Amino acid sequence: MKGELRYEGKAKKVFATDRPDEYVVEYKDDATAFNAQKRGTVLGKGAVNNAITAALYPLLEEAGIPTHFLERLSEREQRVLAVEIIPVEVVVRNLTAGSFSKRLGLSEGVTLSRPVVELYYKSDVLGDPLINEDAAVAMGWATEADLAVIRDLALRVREFLTPFFGARGITLVDFKLEFGRTPAGQIVLADEISPDTCRFWDAATGEKLDKDRFRRDLGGVEDAYQEMLRRVTAQPAGA
Amino acid sequence: MKGELRYEGKAKKVFATDRPDEYVVEYKDDATAFNAQKRGTVLGKGAVNNAITAALYPLLEEAGIPTHFLERLSEREQRVLAVEIIPVEVVVRNLTAGSFSKRLGLSEGVTLSRPVVELYYKSDVLGDPLINEDAAVAMGWATEADLAVIRDLALRVREFLTPFFGARGITLVDFKLEFGRTPAGQIVLADEISPDTCRFWDAATGEKLDKDRFRRDLGGVEDAYQEMLRRVTAQPAGA
Repeated sequence: MKGELRYEGKAKKVFATDRPDEYVVEYKDDATAFNAQKRGTVLGKGAVNNAITAALYPLLEEAGIPTHFLERLSEREQRVLAVEIIPVEVVVRNLTAGSFSKRLGLSEGVTLSRPVVELYYKSDVLGDPLINEDAAVAMGWATEADLAVIRDLALRVREFLTPFFGARGITLVDFKLEFGRTPAGQIVLADEISPDTCRFWDAATGEKLDKDRFRRDLGGVEDAYQEMLRRVTAQPAGA
Repeated sequence: MKGELRYEGKAKKVFATDRPDEYVVEYKDDATAFNAQKRGTVLGKGAVNNAITAALYPLLEEAGIPTHFLERLSEREQRVLAVEIIPVEVVVRNLTAGSFSKRLGLSEGVTLSRPVVELYYKSDVLGDPLINEDAAVAMGWATEADLAVIRDLALRVREFLTPFFGARGITLVDFKLEFGRTPAGQIVLADEISPDTCRFWDAATGEKLDKDRFRRDLGGVEDAYQEMLRRVTAQPAGA
């Protein structure tokens, strides 16, 4: 079923299949941060991120958000539509944290008066620089119409995920999305949603349950990822 | 007439006047670059930038763009409306250059397929970081309505300036604008338009006639500024 390796990223491999319109994604335990200047391994991370993504994407589909996801195949593998990734990463922020805080001289954890959607050019060589819509269009990375669809989808993902995690005792601080174009030309949510791509803070204690434990050498990285899988797959209190 | 010093920036001083709705701006010869890590003096720069701005702003007003400019008072001074500067700098790019080229790994001098308007948070401490409209609104620096007015004005300034300089043998590569709010609440173009705030390339030779001569130690800084004043105030060929 898995054919030739089409792409290897920092955390995943993408394989061709016997169907031209489908890929198999394999999630790795490799962890990188700060544009791969820091490297390591988080045991079980690939399985956790595969499982969390495989739990969330069908829920997003039910909420009307088209995604590339088809099915989970194994502990580390999932079957997805063979999309062409749009090289514009989308970060949605509910609270200040990370590069946003650093760039603007803000403390972390301040609730933003409105969600902030940021675009970054997906380029390891350049360190994923911040861009805006004009730059994305001028450089030919996406059209104005594409970006309007992407912004709308990103905000709808936020509308779904923020209360979803809230009901599970998690503050969704920010998250990164990637979008792809299907062979039929539709823009769909691609990539993953996991502790690698979101900031998750325990709503009661503020404890970080995401990749910042790896980035900032906080320890307990594996436990945090497992805890997030548990929260995502458990029924929320009161449900 | 000139009252108390209200603000001193890297290249200008702003004084109160006996009228609460007016300021006097004094242009200095001080030159800084790379967020004031590089400092120097460009002899005559204050007078040139005052004269160029005093030549351009009335033309922009005639073209329907409201500005803070009232009149040139002396070689280095002009009288302006007492606006409150909006802390969002606006960069409009016709061609790739400078930080845009560096950030996106592009060579300089490539004509963009459409103008790129960028927003930067005006903060010396933070090095004027790139932001977007969501961030500006979330942080309370401007409203969505303000930003729509600012973008429209910035593009109209471009529509006027690009052919104006073209007729004088100058490629307008990019330029930075600042906007202010008048006591009556109107958003108007403020600050200056000069070789400090624009990239001007001789259309025939490509020679830089702007602050990049200072930033990049190219020599002939004073001559370049004087040449730009000559081009702005001379009648264009064929006019």
